[in-house]
Amino acid sequence: MADYVVIMAGGSGTRFWPASRRARPKQFLPIGGTTSLLRQTVERVLPEFDWSRILVVTGQAHAEHARLELPELPVENVLVEPAARNTAACIGWATRVLLARDPDAAACVLPSDHFVSDAALFCRHLKAALRAAREVKTIVLLGLMPTHPETGYGYIERGEAHGESLGFPLNAVKRFVEKPDRATALGYLSAGTYLWNSGMFVFPANVMDAAISKHLPALASGLDRLASEDLGAVYPTLPSTSIDYGVMEKAGNLLVLPANFPWSDVGSWDAAYELHPRDESGNVLLGAALAVGTKNTFVDARSGRTVAIVGLEDVVVVDTPDALLIARRGQSQDVKLVVDALTAAGKKELL
Amino acid sequence: MADYVVIMAGGSGTRFWPASRRARPKQFLPIGGTTSLLRQTVERVLPEFDWSRILVVTGQAHAEHARLELPELPVENVLVEPAARNTAACIGWATRVLLARDPDAAACVLPSDHFVSDAALFCRHLKAALRAAREVKTIVLLGLMPTHPETGYGYIERGEAHGESLGFPLNAVKRFVEKPDRATALGYLSAGTYLWNSGMFVFPANVMDAAISKHLPALASGLDRLASEDLGAVYPTLPSTSIDYGVMEKAGNLLVLPANFPWSDVGSWDAAYELHPRDESGNVLLGAALAVGTKNTFVDARSGRTVAIVGLEDVVVVDTPDALLIARRGQSQDVKLVVDALTAAGKKELL
Repeated sequence: MADYVVIMAGGSGTRFWPASRRARPKQFLPIGGTTSLLRQTVERVLPEFDWSRILVVTGQAHAEHARLELPELPVENVLVEPAARNTAACIGWATRVLLARDPDAAACVLPSDHFVSDAALFCRHLKAALRAAREVKTIVLLGLMPTHPETGYGYIERGEAHGESLGFPLNAVKRFVEKPDRATALGYLSAGTYLWNSGMFVFPANVMDAAISKHLPALASGLDRLASEDLGAVYPTLPSTSIDYGVMEKAGNLLVLPANFPWSDVGSWDAAYELHPRDESGNVLLGAALAVGTKNTFVDARSGRTVAIVGLEDVVVVDTPDALLIARRGQSQDVKLVVDALTAAGKKELL
Repeated sequence: MADYVVIMAGGSGTRFWPASRRARPKQFLPIGGTTSLLRQTVERVLPEFDWSRILVVTGQAHAEHARLELPELPVENVLVEPAARNTAACIGWATRVLLARDPDAAACVLPSDHFVSDAALFCRHLKAALRAAREVKTIVLLGLMPTHPETGYGYIERGEAHGESLGFPLNAVKRFVEKPDRATALGYLSAGTYLWNSGMFVFPANVMDAAISKHLPALASGLDRLASEDLGAVYPTLPSTSIDYGVMEKAGNLLVLPANFPWSDVGSWDAAYELHPRDESGNVLLGAALAVGTKNTFVDARSGRTVAIVGLEDVVVVDTPDALLIARRGQSQDVKLVVDALTAAGKKELL
């Protein structure tokens, strides 16, 4: 009857260039705190889950980095994917690993690169979701109650009420909807029945395993082969599909727990600015940053060089030893244009 | 009858922080070009003046740096002041050095940290001023014809016409005026009789020596002692006054040559922006700079790190290995507030 946390740390991306690189994706960055998002994710659940109950799934490129970030984690709890095969394979494999340890295991699947500011409140949600998942024998999603008409997230429409767990009400999942346009997002906000899909969900391992067998039989067969064949030979042949598309949208009896802890998926440097305390001028100054006559500006100078900023407003500055970003706040998603230009110029050492 | 150039390279200052430091003042920075302003000053006159005819006066702190910048310069042509005693002492000493080499020497005194973009035109002005100074036996100042109502320069009011030299007309100097306010500067511009005081002037050495003896007798006595006593003992005792106040404003027969070469005293990073060619977006991108959706911005990334700038306008960025400046263009004079803050914080290594 052990409860586990499974942290998906296989992501890659360039939205946090220059801090993020191929060798150092977002989950390894100290955003919204002084340690990496990955370590923040682990530390958030440590009051309720022992190190032995935490699994981290990551790719070969980042396994060593993950171990260095989490030296307390037992080596057998780092699951290293020989190839990236999307989230269904990742979660299916982790589920099999848990079942081998404990046929009655349940798991909370958490992204490694999100921000949550109230760990105690967050853990209460996890405990409630675990209890409901075990009782109802289903997958329970955490759906954040929206606070603004966000167009960057997918939404879950909640259906009928389905009792409560540890004081938290639950609902049936009516449907999943893609990222909406602004008008639609405004409608979702006023309707009150739409929740942000956080990518966090909880399930008894045997329930998830059965759901994969039912909805993704080819994946289930592949996972069966892992019992007797080499991981490195089998894993790259697993079908590549997302858990959302492959399981969630097909399973009929999902529940959603409306959640209200402060959360962000930290999609850009603009979002990172929102996560740090601001000074009286609205500035977030990290490291050796010095601001004169400057407002509402984010400066990450934690790489050690002194960054002085004079007479500016609404700017994002991120300094690293070999590259620097200076962007208009609100336009930090255009960092991808910088990455594209560096790629075109063959500047691999900066990517 | 040898003509010399005497370059005053003893300046210090913080207006170009973080590129300028105590150990590396403005004259050693590659502003408006790829070599230092000091070396640009020398190269500007090389078509007309042999290395043996160029003297550089500097302080002990910067002598080695000056020699490294100008390895072609004969060692005896670097005059190292044991202490900074302002411009009258500096020019008085250089004048004595020249007289010892050639009683008929004449000199062009040039600041080491100004920008001039047309070397041939500039040299024609120097030749004309030298010829007039020898003929009239006086000091000839170069006064720039103003192109805008600049409030950052002192002005020379020109008096009666005084013939011509090599095609350039000359005037008597009517008076010197301090930096004006904007209304006064506008009046000067429309009057047409006011010239920017460039700090450049030309004289026969014996004329300058006589003027110092007449107007600054204590300095002349001190300079006399240099013939028999130790430089390091005597120089620090010389009276500290500027050549403008000590000689120019007291001498009665000065001439001014109205000059029209493109010139700037490069008073700030804002001025530096004006000196470089701009791309079609109005940007000056030096070194590894990359601009996306950015206009009218100056980025000096010649220290080697990649600087990416996204969605900004009218910004000055100067990158150095240990410090970075990001300032609103038009406010770059506020860099002194940064220097003050670093001083207050005891960050000597950045000053």
